[in-house]
Amino acid sequence: MERITARYYIETPYAVEKAAAVLAGEQSSGTFVAIPGETEELKNRFAARVEHIEHLDTVSEPAIPGAVSPDGLYRRAFVEVSWSEENFGHNLPTLVSTLQGNLYEITQFTGLKLMDIHFPEAYATNYRGPRFGIDGCRSLTGVATGRPLIGTIIKPSVGLTPAQTAEIVDRLAYAGIDFVKDDELMASTANSRFEDRVDAVMQVINRHADRTGKKVMYAFNISDEMDSMLHKYEYIVKSGGTCAMISLNSVGLAGAKRICDLGELVIHGHRNGWGMLNRHPLLGIEFPAYQKLWRLAGVDQLHVNGIQNKFWESDDSVVRSIASCLDPTPLDKPVLPVVSSGQWGGQAFETYRRTQTTDLLYMAGGGIMAHPGGPAAGVAALQQAWEGAVGGLTLEAAARQYPEFGKSVEKFGKLQFDRA
Amino acid sequence: MERITARYYIETPYAVEKAAAVLAGEQSSGTFVAIPGETEELKNRFAARVEHIEHLDTVSEPAIPGAVSPDGLYRRAFVEVSWSEENFGHNLPTLVSTLQGNLYEITQFTGLKLMDIHFPEAYATNYRGPRFGIDGCRSLTGVATGRPLIGTIIKPSVGLTPAQTAEIVDRLAYAGIDFVKDDELMASTANSRFEDRVDAVMQVINRHADRTGKKVMYAFNISDEMDSMLHKYEYIVKSGGTCAMISLNSVGLAGAKRICDLGELVIHGHRNGWGMLNRHPLLGIEFPAYQKLWRLAGVDQLHVNGIQNKFWESDDSVVRSIASCLDPTPLDKPVLPVVSSGQWGGQAFETYRRTQTTDLLYMAGGGIMAHPGGPAAGVAALQQAWEGAVGGLTLEAAARQYPEFGKSVEKFGKLQFDRA
Repeated sequence: MERITARYYIETPYAVEKAAAVLAGEQSSGTFVAIPGETEELKNRFAARVEHIEHLDTVSEPAIPGAVSPDGLYRRAFVEVSWSEENFGHNLPTLVSTLQGNLYEITQFTGLKLMDIHFPEAYATNYRGPRFGIDGCRSLTGVATGRPLIGTIIKPSVGLTPAQTAEIVDRLAYAGIDFVKDDELMASTANSRFEDRVDAVMQVINRHADRTGKKVMYAFNISDEMDSMLHKYEYIVKSGGTCAMISLNSVGLAGAKRICDLGELVIHGHRNGWGMLNRHPLLGIEFPAYQKLWRLAGVDQLHVNGIQNKFWESDDSVVRSIASCLDPTPLDKPVLPVVSSGQWGGQAFETYRRTQTTDLLYMAGGGIMAHPGGPAAGVAALQQAWEGAVGGLTLEAAARQYPEFGKSVEKFGKLQFDRA
Repeated sequence: MERITARYYIETPYAVEKAAAVLAGEQSSGTFVAIPGETEELKNRFAARVEHIEHLDTVSEPAIPGAVSPDGLYRRAFVEVSWSEENFGHNLPTLVSTLQGNLYEITQFTGLKLMDIHFPEAYATNYRGPRFGIDGCRSLTGVATGRPLIGTIIKPSVGLTPAQTAEIVDRLAYAGIDFVKDDELMASTANSRFEDRVDAVMQVINRHADRTGKKVMYAFNISDEMDSMLHKYEYIVKSGGTCAMISLNSVGLAGAKRICDLGELVIHGHRNGWGMLNRHPLLGIEFPAYQKLWRLAGVDQLHVNGIQNKFWESDDSVVRSIASCLDPTPLDKPVLPVVSSGQWGGQAFETYRRTQTTDLLYMAGGGIMAHPGGPAAGVAALQQAWEGAVGGLTLEAAARQYPEFGKSVEKFGKLQFDRA
């Protein structure tokens, strides 16, 4: 029988082997007294198995509260544990409860992070994964390979009326944008009912599509309770839209997968709340594991933050996240990495140098809307930045060669230095 | 317009007032460049507002990675921020994205925990909350006020066949148990298909109900993808069951609320994965805020861990959690606290002393099944422990007065000392 293997980064006040055994026990039979029905045969079939231990360093202070070490030392290690597919079948929420459930509560750990998951091939057969993915997003927006999709976010996040939102989309469509999205804070506000916003925005997008043949992809934020999400999804489909956005952590795995399963719209996966799950180095989950769960659920686009972002995350971490989205496993269907947060084009050079890919949705907010030459110049500047980056130019050379990008560097490059 | 207020425990390398303003800005308009459309009028209507700041201590090491403090100090504070209901209406996932979304990513914080949420009265009107709650659970199990519902968990967690599970339930029903649940690791396994387990277990439970008039409440774990959950829910209803269990964090808010909305079964809310959201003192969410979200979603029973539990959580924290479940706000419908983890009855005394309530579902695993006199003696021992605790006896006095509880103290009291 095939097995699912999880890789953890742990810290324990006890022997690593002992703590790993507790993890495996708690997550497959766990109770504090031996039970008569717990036969050897059952154990062999359903017990989790410690597959591998790699000892790391030892520290004198625990990373998070837990048991006090008898010898004052806290041992770190990578631990791999496997479960038979028979334990949960194809049931993502129960898989999550097994790989991530009560084990964060175990006092034998003073740190525990799920680093990665290895799925057997049967998962690739059972789960369709991203219905559209990278190719589908390129085809729907008419962006050939060779450059990222260029996108932006409607700002201010909340407060604009549908007419004001549509007016911005109109300017962006004229400017040649590929993708626009609602902010995650914008769902249905007192002055921008969801349906009214879809009506106003799609009228603009459909008109431009009739004119140019290019349909801007707009990610309407449908994050809501279940019936409302289904209603909003259908409303987008009916209006000729191509994409819906879900705040994955807030909606949750069952609800998000239900929406992905519909298969008529590209699903833009927003990972807000992610910092809570990841920011501590020894608590929570790392992105390679996280993106696999959402990829199995069927998300087409997934946020990865950006190089030199305005948040706390390091560039190394962002680069790893992009690589894991593009890695073919477990489904041989990559999810499109959404690069955002403080992006204005200047980061294209470092992003390309480190990832060597243009299979990205590259999002800039102020970088487009606040460009000195207006949004069209902002979009042009981003395309130029990527053309320069892919063509081997330095930022400085691209700034000299391309006038719109040059203006971006003058305005936003300075800002970035101020922030640094 | 009414406002939702969130209380945070924060740590920042900068002035607390400045960091609080960043939080409010990021979660209502947030971008790094001033945008033309961002008018004063919009800001006043939709901007989040810092309502209150309470300065706490200052430390020299950041709790989690973030910006480096210019003066080497990290300032801690309680901060209250409010949003107009107009920002998101009645949409729990978007409320979560607003109160807990990207703000965990903000580099101006080296610690951030959502402590509590104050909801305006309109929420109590819009959300039904627990359909059954404490009174409904008492009435369905026939347990009058004055003692907790006594429950247990089928162990081993995974591996038993439906017939083996039903056999255990049969013994427990004879023993006078009020409540039995699947483990969160048990959904539908290779040797225990969900439907087969429901068939086998409900046949036993219905037979006992015919005999005694008392129907044991069995929480079948329906945690799964959306359509499967709905199917499993209906299967329980059809079979005469009274309760379904959901792993809340794994299923997510939208999916769980959809199930709660059906309103035909008591929903047992399992919080596995909670440690990831809570274990660090300065990252994530505290239980008072967490339980309000799930209570609004409609969960009837919610896990709170237990006094002297086998996990890392302190007794103080467990006591606070129980109090928050029983607090009437925001819905005037308390959720039944589920006390579990290493419980065997000995903790009844301290639990009652500190909470002064019997409105609990008191769960013991090995404490019932591994009682020297068998499960019936185990159930009796738990009832005796609570009778003693409510009657003002000490553990020692109760052990002398009640023979079955006396045996528990001999077996499990010793174990507990060994663990301490």
